[in-house]
Amino acid sequence: MKVTRDTIIGYEKLYRANFINSLPGFKSVNLIGTISSGGKTNLAIFNSVTHVGAHPPLMGFLMRPVSVERHTYENIKETNHFTINYINKEIFKQAHQTSARYEKNISEFDANGLTPEYTETIRAPYVKESKIKIGLSIVEEQEIHSNGTIFIVGEILEVLIPDDVISHDGYADIEKAGTIAISGLDSYHETQRIARLSYAKPGIEPKEV
Amino acid sequence: MKVTRDTIIGYEKLYRANFINSLPGFKSVNLIGTISSGGKTNLAIFNSVTHVGAHPPLMGFLMRPVSVERHTYENIKETNHFTINYINKEIFKQAHQTSARYEKNISEFDANGLTPEYTETIRAPYVKESKIKIGLSIVEEQEIHSNGTIFIVGEILEVLIPDDVISHDGYADIEKAGTIAISGLDSYHETQRIARLSYAKPGIEPKEV
Repeated sequence: MKVTRDTIIGYEKLYRANFINSLPGFKSVNLIGTISSGGKTNLAIFNSVTHVGAHPPLMGFLMRPVSVERHTYENIKETNHFTINYINKEIFKQAHQTSARYEKNISEFDANGLTPEYTETIRAPYVKESKIKIGLSIVEEQEIHSNGTIFIVGEILEVLIPDDVISHDGYADIEKAGTIAISGLDSYHETQRIARLSYAKPGIEPKEV
Repeated sequence: MKVTRDTIIGYEKLYRANFINSLPGFKSVNLIGTISSGGKTNLAIFNSVTHVGAHPPLMGFLMRPVSVERHTYENIKETNHFTINYINKEIFKQAHQTSARYEKNISEFDANGLTPEYTETIRAPYVKESKIKIGLSIVEEQEIHSNGTIFIVGEILEVLIPDDVISHDGYADIEKAGTIAISGLDSYHETQRIARLSYAKPGIEPKEV
């Protein structure tokens, strides 16, 4: 079927949110950890973490700073740091639950049985139960004027990752670490590798590597 | 293990690209179709398509305009339109192969046995072999100054999607459509749903829906 822009605009709000959020395809789902200058931790689930560049090593994510995500934004502005923590099957329900609108004095760590842990480098909490964790410092923010969302860019300062996940060529086998994906707002998925393909060159069929 | 920023900076270029591109987690992988004002079609694979907003319906993706992706950028600037086409297991090798550096007079459609198709609304080719396809008009671009990449935002003008993929609440079951995910630069994955979870509320454990 063909769904036109006018049809989409006419959808009931939650129906539209479910539909439009499904359209990018499978997405990463991560917990972003931050702390206020006063020491209050915050943890929020995001499905918009994206590769920005390898040299310097940059990652980005999109946020709505006036919504439930505002503590994340305020904390990053205060401390410059944030952590990206992978979600696996063992913690996906707790991770999902961090999106509830908790009272301001409640930390999503405490409310959901997740454990903050720290390194000397990053002034933000990691999630102990995550298997792959990245510590970043904000380097840029760009407002998307069409709807006021903000694209936050961070430089990677450290990556905490099991040794056996990193392949001989640098690829991190995130499937081996039990990482899951999301589609839409609330559908969580395990993965099964089909293949890795060789670097594409004109006229040469890609090989499985 | 802990991988520091200095270690990452010291990696060999391809090793670093493989490692850093793995870090966002599973990503969507899509073919973006465009056409020049002179009528030459272009097709390029992207793993950065992101949800931007539901009202108005917006999607975005990140591109390096001076690389192999430059035809996509130039064409969008000329015609305003682009298409996002899902990749399934049947076409993932052809899709991967579109990233080869073809000569300027060769269309990635012809070179890879993919079929352009058109609607009355969008001045850009869809991929006939894709099961879910989205037609968009560019509404904004934001340069990421840290490395010169550009975040392109498009408004959804139409969605071509099988009827039976859309759930009662608007969620599009992209797994049912055989959609695949990517990790790193070249690892393709099928998915298996774990669960959809109910809307999170403080103090109430999320239910599977």
